[in-house]
Amino acid sequence: MITLSVDAMGGDEGLTVTAPAVARFLQNQADVRLIMVGDSAQIQAALAKENVPMERVEIVHASEVVGMDESPQHALKNKKDSSMRVAIQQVKEGKAQAAVSAGNTGALMATARFVLKTLAGIERPAIAKFMPAAKGHQTLVLDLGANVDCTPEQLLQFAVMGGQLVRALQPENANPKIGLLNIGTEDIKGTETVKQTFTLLRESNLNFIGNVEANTIFDTEADVIVADGFTGNVVLKTVEGTIRFAGGMIKQEFTRNVFTKLSALAALPVLKSFKRRLDPRRYNGAIFLGLHGVVVKSHGGTDKIGFMYALEEAYHEAQADSIAKIEQGIAAQLNKSE
Amino acid sequence: MITLSVDAMGGDEGLTVTAPAVARFLQNQADVRLIMVGDSAQIQAALAKENVPMERVEIVHASEVVGMDESPQHALKNKKDSSMRVAIQQVKEGKAQAAVSAGNTGALMATARFVLKTLAGIERPAIAKFMPAAKGHQTLVLDLGANVDCTPEQLLQFAVMGGQLVRALQPENANPKIGLLNIGTEDIKGTETVKQTFTLLRESNLNFIGNVEANTIFDTEADVIVADGFTGNVVLKTVEGTIRFAGGMIKQEFTRNVFTKLSALAALPVLKSFKRRLDPRRYNGAIFLGLHGVVVKSHGGTDKIGFMYALEEAYHEAQADSIAKIEQGIAAQLNKSE
Repeated sequence: MITLSVDAMGGDEGLTVTAPAVARFLQNQADVRLIMVGDSAQIQAALAKENVPMERVEIVHASEVVGMDESPQHALKNKKDSSMRVAIQQVKEGKAQAAVSAGNTGALMATARFVLKTLAGIERPAIAKFMPAAKGHQTLVLDLGANVDCTPEQLLQFAVMGGQLVRALQPENANPKIGLLNIGTEDIKGTETVKQTFTLLRESNLNFIGNVEANTIFDTEADVIVADGFTGNVVLKTVEGTIRFAGGMIKQEFTRNVFTKLSALAALPVLKSFKRRLDPRRYNGAIFLGLHGVVVKSHGGTDKIGFMYALEEAYHEAQADSIAKIEQGIAAQLNKSE
Repeated sequence: MITLSVDAMGGDEGLTVTAPAVARFLQNQADVRLIMVGDSAQIQAALAKENVPMERVEIVHASEVVGMDESPQHALKNKKDSSMRVAIQQVKEGKAQAAVSAGNTGALMATARFVLKTLAGIERPAIAKFMPAAKGHQTLVLDLGANVDCTPEQLLQFAVMGGQLVRALQPENANPKIGLLNIGTEDIKGTETVKQTFTLLRESNLNFIGNVEANTIFDTEADVIVADGFTGNVVLKTVEGTIRFAGGMIKQEFTRNVFTKLSALAALPVLKSFKRRLDPRRYNGAIFLGLHGVVVKSHGGTDKIGFMYALEEAYHEAQADSIAKIEQGIAAQLNKSE
């Protein structure tokens, strides 16, 4: 049985999204228990409206909610009984194997670091996400914004953690391929930091396959792509903007006149399937890596489908016992270089 | 009459691409003359196969060609009679208003800097490109890879040059909106360099509209987006990769079975129009900004259509007398801060 703790109040819509998502998730997964953290009366009321197997739900009261624009410092100092913090506390106390929140990223990361502490050998936790890819292959990209200025050593740590997470989730993949996001494939490309990281990765015992250019992120053979949080975040958002742009253009073309509208009718099943495959909700759920516990961050503005995918992500990680494997990886691959 | 000089030998395919592109371009534009630079016998032979108004073509012989993988240093030192260098020389000597080359970016930039020299007040030239955007609006993004590590002062210089280029090309747009590529809209976001650049831009007399996130590059109101060359290049390549990925997925969905193939037939005109609008060849032609002369870089692997668009880009810039306007802008907007 897997137990996840859920920040029931987090995100733009709070329980309006988390309650139906939780209901659906519990229907899908039989071997899971949830600890719903937040205002207990509100949670009770919201769950009563859904078809929820209450024998697998525990409600833990928390009297505060971290605002979506609240600063990490303010949340840490003044919201000691926030739903976010108490949800993470459940992981710390061993009552849950993973916590999920749609709360604000900065506060969630700060709280997770404060409560769970960073793994030995890791200077800074990172945010990671699997990107959709052609041929069913998925590539984990990190960091996606936790650390804007990174040292080469930190980027190496990201590579180690990313590789171990892939190993944990894909046991058949014993030696994940690590790529370094760069603006060319030659060794000499990139900023000073990126060049030094290239050297560190080449000297490591990771399966380093060299530089990966951003135009190949959807068809690279790399299992992990390492970048600083500024660049990683830019990649993620550029993908999001480009897909929205291309989708809008398809729509524009199909609604241009009566003939194109007729052809859209004919193409409807295909267009729907296309839209479904690129649906950002299916890729919701970013993983905080480098902590003594699993924390998954849902997009703050997602709906119940998106939040359900974030719960799925946490479930798979908890099942894979990823933290233990990451700790082993750090011991094997980083300590020797210290 | 506008005169452009063309590195006839540059690019993966050399004259196979440049000769037919030149023929088509001359047919489209009546008020243009071309100086074709390279092996004169080969140029003569290649142009003879095309329908070219030879009275508007001058051939200037150059005995060498810079290789696509040749280092900038090697090209500068050993290829003093290269088609690339002699083409740029035409601009230096006032014989042409702009040079176009599909040769390798590093060598082209180094040669352009060496021959044309950098404008006073500009430390480093940048590479700029207009991105397609919704509603017919176009956004100039720079730097796209000339300078991987940038200071805040250099980023401010890019903003000034970009703004002046937009003013030159769009005379009705007297005060172009400048955005700073960042990972959030709040002032406090970004790397140290980006934060300092934010302050410089806010204190400048540019029309600075604040941070722009990468998910809005296709629908931002910004006329210019400023980034360091590493980030800018990553954005450009992420867009390229994402469009290819989405296009491949549409194709996959439409060829899934006999029904989807039939609907593809019905949707064919729409799909073609969609494909045409996102055709990267239509956006070929990156502008080198910050030199005493216009140099446009075509993608090395493009075809005749793509190379023709690079010629069009150079033509519009030469028409707009962009260099003079950029020099004025530097005098008005940068010198005061020195």
